[in-house]
Amino acid sequence: MGSPARPKGSVYIATSLDGYIARADGSLDWLDHDSGGDDYGFAAFLDSVDTLVMGRTTFEQVLCFDQWPYGQRRFVVMSRTRQSFTVPDHVTATIQVSSASPRELMVALGGAGARHVYVDGGQVIQAFLREGLVDEITISRLPVLLGDGIPLFGGLAADVALKHVATQSFPSGVVQSKYRTAG
Amino acid sequence: MGSPARPKGSVYIATSLDGYIARADGSLDWLDHDSGGDDYGFAAFLDSVDTLVMGRTTFEQVLCFDQWPYGQRRFVVMSRTRQSFTVPDHVTATIQVSSASPRELMVALGGAGARHVYVDGGQVIQAFLREGLVDEITISRLPVLLGDGIPLFGGLAADVALKHVATQSFPSGVVQSKYRTAG
Repeated sequence: MGSPARPKGSVYIATSLDGYIARADGSLDWLDHDSGGDDYGFAAFLDSVDTLVMGRTTFEQVLCFDQWPYGQRRFVVMSRTRQSFTVPDHVTATIQVSSASPRELMVALGGAGARHVYVDGGQVIQAFLREGLVDEITISRLPVLLGDGIPLFGGLAADVALKHVATQSFPSGVVQSKYRTAG
Repeated sequence: MGSPARPKGSVYIATSLDGYIARADGSLDWLDHDSGGDDYGFAAFLDSVDTLVMGRTTFEQVLCFDQWPYGQRRFVVMSRTRQSFTVPDHVTATIQVSSASPRELMVALGGAGARHVYVDGGQVIQAFLREGLVDEITISRLPVLLGDGIPLFGGLAADVALKHVATQSFPSGVVQSKYRTAG
């Protein structure tokens, strides 16, 4: 009766105008700007997801945040080495660590009731895109060129055609575009 | 009485969503799409410039177009080797070849009466950006990921802060954003 349903995969990320999600050393200082109090729809997006998947590197950065922004949602760290993490007290979620492939993980999450997965972190996003597991991409572009860094997008086996859903610009100069993949 | 006025430098270019202006082999097939008859403001932009500057590689591609889109405007090909070109009959402009540096060229163009220069071609755009000679950038992003190719942006000595001017999206899925540099 068909393949098991997999949950929807969404990317919601900020980049520089030249497409970097972090400087080459991982720093995110360039993201600091006066947003005029706008959260660029992040809270509404987060409300729509039940599960987060991110890579180890991104997770280690998130652990350095003063606050845990993700609530008690299902939270999976992808790590081939199944390493253990020291999770600070303010982290309210139970962290699962998985060494599954992106597709295996999405199918397993679907089986566990996940409907909408927030896919985050440079390498993880690229791996999910290559395997056709990203259904929606929201990019918030800051008006700055960094010249170098960790790119959002990477190599693909073939072109990926997208459907533009909506674009919104903000007084801060951030331009946010949402796309759906054809798959 | 101050340095000689240099003309305004503008970039007007299409990229893939992952920031490429051409595939790795230079091909532009992915630019073909149903624009619904829209020229994305190109004619109006072209009307505002009096001079074009592009690199040799881009110029050789333009020479393969069936039509010469640039009218009789002043036209400069930057080429360190001062090579000669076979210019087809349908090219209505006089082509100058220059081995000057970007800054030298802009100052010389200003002296020759240029007010607004359309800076085109991957390497030339990157060189002009690095030297602070680009005042306005209009990027039209097509809704496709290529995975590889010739990037619009390259390395910089320092961050370049931009001011977002306006963003417009089109029924074709193209999203066009205009920025000004702070300089």
